[in-house]
Amino acid sequence: MSSLTHFDEAGRAAMVDVAGKAETERLAVARGRVVMQPATLALIAEGKAGKGDVLGVARLAGIMAAKRTSDLIPLCHPLMLTKVAVDLVIVEPEAVEIEAQVRVTGRTGVEMEALTAVTVAALTVYDMVKAVDRGMRIEDVRLVLKEGGKSGRFEAEA
Amino acid sequence: MSSLTHFDEAGRAAMVDVAGKAETERLAVARGRVVMQPATLALIAEGKAGKGDVLGVARLAGIMAAKRTSDLIPLCHPLMLTKVAVDLVIVEPEAVEIEAQVRVTGRTGVEMEALTAVTVAALTVYDMVKAVDRGMRIEDVRLVLKEGGKSGRFEAEA
Amino acid sequence: MSSLTHFDEAGRAAMVDVAGKAETERLAVARGRVVMQPATLALIAEGKAGKGDVLGVARLAGIMAAKRTSDLIPLCHPLMLTKVAVDLVIVEPEAVEIEAQVRVTGRTGVEMEALTAVTVAALTVYDMVKAVDRGMRIEDVRLVLKEGGKSGRFEAEA
Amino acid sequence: MSSLTHFDEAGRAAMVDVAGKAETERLAVARGRVVMQPATLALIAEGKAGKGDVLGVARLAGIMAAKRTSDLIPLCHPLMLTKVAVDLVIVEPEAVEIEAQVRVTGRTGVEMEALTAVTVAALTVYDMVKAVDRGMRIEDVRLVLKEGGKSGRFEAEA
Amino acid sequence: MSSLTHFDEAGRAAMVDVAGKAETERLAVARGRVVMQPATLALIAEGKAGKGDVLGVARLAGIMAAKRTSDLIPLCHPLMLTKVAVDLVIVEPEAVEIEAQVRVTGRTGVEMEALTAVTVAALTVYDMVKAVDRGMRIEDVRLVLKEGGKSGRFEAEA
Amino acid sequence: MSSLTHFDEAGRAAMVDVAGKAETERLAVARGRVVMQPATLALIAEGKAGKGDVLGVARLAGIMAAKRTSDLIPLCHPLMLTKVAVDLVIVEPEAVEIEAQVRVTGRTGVEMEALTAVTVAALTVYDMVKAVDRGMRIEDVRLVLKEGGKSGRFEAEA
Repeated sequence: MSSLTHFDEAGRAAMVDVAGKAETERLAVARGRVVMQPATLALIAEGKAGKGDVLGVARLAGIMAAKRTSDLIPLCHPLMLTKVAVDLVIVEPEAVEIEAQVRVTGRTGVEMEALTAVTVAALTVYDMVKAVDRGMRIEDVRLVLKEGGKSGRFEAEA
Repeated sequence: MSSLTHFDEAGRAAMVDVAGKAETERLAVARGRVVMQPATLALIAEGKAGKGDVLGVARLAGIMAAKRTSDLIPLCHPLMLTKVAVDLVIVEPEAVEIEAQVRVTGRTGVEMEALTAVTVAALTVYDMVKAVDRGMRIEDVRLVLKEGGKSGRFEAEA
Repeated sequence: MSSLTHFDEAGRAAMVDVAGKAETERLAVARGRVVMQPATLALIAEGKAGKGDVLGVARLAGIMAAKRTSDLIPLCHPLMLTKVAVDLVIVEPEAVEIEAQVRVTGRTGVEMEALTAVTVAALTVYDMVKAVDRGMRIEDVRLVLKEGGKSGRFEAEA
Repeated sequence: MSSLTHFDEAGRAAMVDVAGKAETERLAVARGRVVMQPATLALIAEGKAGKGDVLGVARLAGIMAAKRTSDLIPLCHPLMLTKVAVDLVIVEPEAVEIEAQVRVTGRTGVEMEALTAVTVAALTVYDMVKAVDRGMRIEDVRLVLKEGGKSGRFEAEA
Repeated sequence: MSSLTHFDEAGRAAMVDVAGKAETERLAVARGRVVMQPATLALIAEGKAGKGDVLGVARLAGIMAAKRTSDLIPLCHPLMLTKVAVDLVIVEPEAVEIEAQVRVTGRTGVEMEALTAVTVAALTVYDMVKAVDRGMRIEDVRLVLKEGGKSGRFEAEA
Repeated sequence: MSSLTHFDEAGRAAMVDVAGKAETERLAVARGRVVMQPATLALIAEGKAGKGDVLGVARLAGIMAAKRTSDLIPLCHPLMLTKVAVDLVIVEPEAVEIEAQVRVTGRTGVEMEALTAVTVAALTVYDMVKAVDRGMRIEDVRLVLKEGGKSGRFEAEA
């Protein structure tokens, strides 16, 4: 049935025309998780108590990465994001859960910005603890909420 | 026991000193997966037949992202990568599997570069097919092989 | 008669004020050509048949470069491009012809974005085949169409 | 006979492995030209006399662009350039001639860096005078000299 | 009394939501100074007479940096600047005074863009003369004027 | 006596040739200060107690900016920094003092990287508290120590 919007009838990739779309308020929320050894998670938890704020560094990296999305993803439109928030929480016994929320008043959605924020925050967590745990995995990165724009509201099932 | 190398004794984040490390040949291989509806995967598979090369675009995005790693991950060292290769394969019925291989002759490893290539390639796949499938997930992003450097060879269990 | 708009009365370069200009829909189309040995062109043509998609890689590079224009050209304004398309065709016996089309709803034109897309696509073609042909040349990069904005429509003579 | 080095046997693009190449001193010189109306060239020439230094701005843009080459050209290796010089001269009656010279001590050549410097300097000239002359063309961008590396010295015929 | 707007109630940094703010014309003017040996200043002054235009290079660097502000300052919003001008003047016997003026039609102010332009212009002056004077200092970088937006006009006391 | 190294005999700016310089270990330490109202400083000090870590965010921004130096300062060479550390301390009653330390094994010094880290950290402090204090100033940004390279050790007088 459907075909891919980022390619023309001859199969050539393009940054698709959004000039005809309305400038509306748009929101996207994405989530993901870094899974690790319980002892690794304990090190991160200790850091929150003053020995090295892994989650604070990763939050910043995620926020900054959201602003670089159109540089990284070839066919993404540049957008003037109006809000980026990234939250990381420790979920015992073995995961850091990450959520990013991105808003824009623009012609196209911000799913990719939210997903980019989550993945770069996850990579940053990984980077800071990789010396003690090489078996970590980034899991379950997905869109959980999308509002605004023609296609309407999307909310992932729990 | 251990503490985090990216923080000093007062808990301050820093790009750690690698001047004392030897310049050796280093390799890292990372993998990950984008999981989607079988119908979505079918669209991507068709594209390989000339209607829009999703995997080719994602490969390029992954390669270019590897070169941007130290811009994205706050405490990563800049490195002159000598090789970056990214491979994406369709795994029926519902996944695109991604592998990135990065090499350097340098003072620090390239795990983060390989992981960044995998995640940005995954995000790019996501971007190009999100109009038809909003429930996709990026899964199981992890290091599978690391060679070179003081800490020796690491190979993930299958 | 005329003087240069990017310099003030004392000859100092500046990014000129466009706040007073209307936000209108604007379009620019630019073209250029990479001239090479017929045998080199044949290698590229073969690639289209599955051995290495030179034109597909160059297309992506051109699209991404259009988004970086204001980073590269010192006095260009940042713009939220609404469309970027780049097309490359093989013109026997010795050229790859490149055309870029860029759209924006904004206060200033997108000629530089279209020209940047063409030149970076051309450089990317060059990069991928330079090992077999060092005598290639990039030729005839020019604006062919411009619409929108106060200065009206411009179309180059054929 | 030959095949393209930037693609593997399956036609997949990659940043090719240069780890086995020697770190040698390498030089590349590239040239190009912006062709315009004599009246436009006269405006640029006046600027040299203090009313707006078009060539000085373009020189800087070219130098800075050389450092961004591996960000722009997908399969280029990052390199620590040891020298970049860009020269622009007015050639009556209708051209600005541009030459870029780039040096590195590294594992791969700097042709692309020299060509990128020339083209971005040319685009910057174009940007600054486009308000008075929309018919300008960038012409004859090519490599004129290459030294260092396994493939030996290359000098373009005059 | 007050608390910091860039942190939420739990102390987490975020790029704050400006979607509710009106798009208005905004202006910011910032100033700063590079203090050096009189002999160093004399070298710069000579350059204006044709031996090397330190101030022209620094002006360009400041303008380009203003466009990179949201890349550098973690919680700054991306903005489509409509004007950037940077002026540098020699103040005998020992200072280069720098002023940057930035305009935007947007939802948030451009103080950081003006301050970034001033500091990068100052760093560029420093870079070009550091070989002859290592004791230079960058001094008195501050906002001198701000207009537009809810908080009204601000003008620094002389 | 002296002339400026970043310009050739005709006054043209260039990234000077460092190929002939030895690869040695180099260190630079720079310092600067953000001066503000005592009440503003008190807000920052509170943040350290968990309500918003201004200094932590600024530290990260400074570290990341050091890696971008050659992108910002037109004639700076790209360098593979081996260490970047940034420290910010509250100095009652009205200043945040910033120190950056940068190391490299390379052909040219890292003064500009250390100074860039200090200024961007200072700008980031400014950004986060500007809503409560528009009169802040960045003061006394200077090099305090430089080691390695032909020109020998430099230490600023106290």
